[in-house]
Amino acid sequence: MVKQTYQFSTASVDYYFNGSMEQLSAIADTNSTVLITDENVFAAHTAKFNGWKTIVMKAGEAHKIQSTVDDVIRQLIELGADRKSTVVGVGGGVVTDMVGYIAAVYMRGIACGFIPTTILAMVDASIGGKNGIDVGVYKNMVGIIRQPSFLLYDVSLLESLPLKEWENGFAEVIKHAAIKDAAMFDELEQHSIAYYQDNKEALQQLIERNCLIKTKVVQEDEFEKADRKLLNLGHTLGHAIENKYELMHGHAVTIGMVAAAKISEEINNFSSAEKQRLTKLIEQYGLTSSFAFDKAEAFETLKKDKKKAQDVMQYVVLNKIGEAKVMNIPLVQLKELIENL
Amino acid sequence: MVKQTYQFSTASVDYYFNGSMEQLSAIADTNSTVLITDENVFAAHTAKFNGWKTIVMKAGEAHKIQSTVDDVIRQLIELGADRKSTVVGVGGGVVTDMVGYIAAVYMRGIACGFIPTTILAMVDASIGGKNGIDVGVYKNMVGIIRQPSFLLYDVSLLESLPLKEWENGFAEVIKHAAIKDAAMFDELEQHSIAYYQDNKEALQQLIERNCLIKTKVVQEDEFEKADRKLLNLGHTLGHAIENKYELMHGHAVTIGMVAAAKISEEINNFSSAEKQRLTKLIEQYGLTSSFAFDKAEAFETLKKDKKKAQDVMQYVVLNKIGEAKVMNIPLVQLKELIENL
Ligand SMILES: NC(=O)c1ccc[n+]([C@@H]2O[C@H](COP(=O)([O-])OP(=O)(O)OC[C@H]3O[C@@H](n4cnc5c(N)ncnc54)[C@H](O)[C@@H]3O)[C@@H](O)[C@H]2O)c1
Ligand SMILES: NC(=O)c1ccc[n+]([C@@H]2O[C@H](COP(=O)([O-])OP(=O)(O)OC[C@H]3O[C@@H](n4cnc5c(N)ncnc54)[C@H](O)[C@@H]3O)[C@@H](O)[C@H]2O)c1
Ligand SMILES: [Zn+2]
Ligand SMILES: [Zn+2]
Repeated sequence: MVKQTYQFSTASVDYYFNGSMEQLSAIADTNSTVLITDENVFAAHTAKFNGWKTIVMKAGEAHKIQSTVDDVIRQLIELGADRKSTVVGVGGGVVTDMVGYIAAVYMRGIACGFIPTTILAMVDASIGGKNGIDVGVYKNMVGIIRQPSFLLYDVSLLESLPLKEWENGFAEVIKHAAIKDAAMFDELEQHSIAYYQDNKEALQQLIERNCLIKTKVVQEDEFEKADRKLLNLGHTLGHAIENKYELMHGHAVTIGMVAAAKISEEINNFSSAEKQRLTKLIEQYGLTSSFAFDKAEAFETLKKDKKKAQDVMQYVVLNKIGEAKVMNIPLVQLKELIENL
Repeated sequence: MVKQTYQFSTASVDYYFNGSMEQLSAIADTNSTVLITDENVFAAHTAKFNGWKTIVMKAGEAHKIQSTVDDVIRQLIELGADRKSTVVGVGGGVVTDMVGYIAAVYMRGIACGFIPTTILAMVDASIGGKNGIDVGVYKNMVGIIRQPSFLLYDVSLLESLPLKEWENGFAEVIKHAAIKDAAMFDELEQHSIAYYQDNKEALQQLIERNCLIKTKVVQEDEFEKADRKLLNLGHTLGHAIENKYELMHGHAVTIGMVAAAKISEEINNFSSAEKQRLTKLIEQYGLTSSFAFDKAEAFETLKKDKKKAQDVMQYVVLNKIGEAKVMNIPLVQLKELIENL
């Protein structure tokens, strides 16, 4: 287990890489800590919760809502959790988003840590302090920005993760490579999910590398004024089709990334060869590169999702593999670009 | 209307003294602002909400709960409130506590302001950034610490406030005088609630003075490590009897203050003459100075309320009128002191 400390504007966060969940007792006090997980993670790793007070939530995005928060808070009270307690979210992004939120509001804020158990949570959701819950059809409508005290990485927890969740997580890994790390893009091209599943050391290093990419972006722009927006590559269009076609998030994002690559080719001199490399890599990791969707409708959804009524849209485009930027695309032009995808 | 800006560790807050609610439009944009109030305040001041989007909650502590928060959030979504919106809580401490909380979590935090409409909210609840809701029997179990953007003081709103709520608020005014401001204590001795009800200028000045006492204490100790604890004078014992005997908060606090004065006489050389001055002042403002309660039981409740299992209790005692300190009283001694009250 290797500890690295990263400073954010409001707090510092300890990252324990190459760790194992068994080592949690070296970081958190057994008496005053409550683990919070979901039923799938608990079922797959029951023994690891031995000796810890544990709250088990229902699994899945459908339960990332206030009534689950209410339930957990009631259980924290019953367990006698107080201002000095720590909660540790052990799970995917649904768990870490909710536990981060609960920790922020319970008794006006108690300490929390995360042990992410999905690729997506390891490289994305557990990093950066955004947390929250959904309200009706609105994702992450309620929440706050608050850093956890620590993150503990144990890649052996991924042994039980279903393949489709590996694919889902690799969408964000490919995104990180595309916007920030050409060398990692090269590495990914040499391998596959099966390779990382079989090579724990390579997996561990890949996770750490991705974790640090997101960490650095967030550190430089915690409140999403500029660089943090690059993390939205593929997400603008992705979100516009994800619910409608009931796509997994990762697939919606890779469809969105290919679309962004095409748009980048049109308006940002992104090369056709690199676009093809991206498409190929996406497919190599079991993700979707092309998908027939109603383009006019997607554009309307995307326009509606914008927070402000303006006639341009901030869109993440690629300069080349490993480098991206935000462009202000006039809505009229964007409509055409999307219709011509 | 006079604007003063106070800096807290995380944010600065604009205080508008001597204002009127009509001037809100000079501070907040009518289109992007939503006022949130309770049914009593709305009924008493309906015309003042003209031209503003308004959400009206049920009144009273019983509604300071998550389901009210859920309702308000649903209404904010319906009204199209977004990241750029501002919410303004117009009401007593129940409204300002809830609106501060809602603003902190809606879309991960939007701007908020308060227009306090009770004495208690003007001199206490709306200041300092603590917000929250109750969970079951637990007061303020969930919430966060976050400063509002502004406070607007309009003492004419108090014209509709029931007398018992004036008394309630004056308990905190007397508390402030006792711990921090001997000259204000002298002034209070010259007057009565009726005097302040009839003299808007004197009332306005008294409110401002109290607001600044709390502000200064919080500024120096936002996260309640030291000096902010002095604001708990009378509250430790007060809370232990408030629910059990269904006392109004102000009365529970003044009973607690007299008890603290007696304890201070025993163990801190607080003079008997000053104790009598305090008792007299409390009665002069319609509040309760003596009340027969089950002392053994109150001690047990108070012991249970402590956040940490320790054998001493931090208790606020008076040195003299206008000066207080925190003493660590061993529980065995405290038990005896309370039984001998
Ligand atoms: N806060 C952020 O910055 C951020 C960033 C990206 C995504 N998110 C959020 O993350 C969530 C998605 O995260 P996710 O993809 O991890 O979803 P998830 O938490 O729902 O996990 C996916 C599925 O895998 C199961 N699972 C998790 N770990 C497992 C394991 N080790 N073994 C077996 N099963 C396991 C879960 O029970 C669930 O069924 C979304 O709610 C999204 O909004 C947040
Ligand atoms: N955040 C803090 O630091 C802090 C400090 C002290 C108290 N509080 C909280 O404040 C709350 C108590 O505040 P409160 O005493 O103002 O209670 P409140 O908000 O319930 O108001 C008392 C009553 O007066 C009514 N009312 C309010 N203004 C009125 C007006 N101008 N005219 C007519 N009726 C009016 C209300 O509808 C209510 O019925 C408690 O929940 C307490 O926890 C918070
Ligand atoms: Zn994503
Ligand atoms: Zn009080």
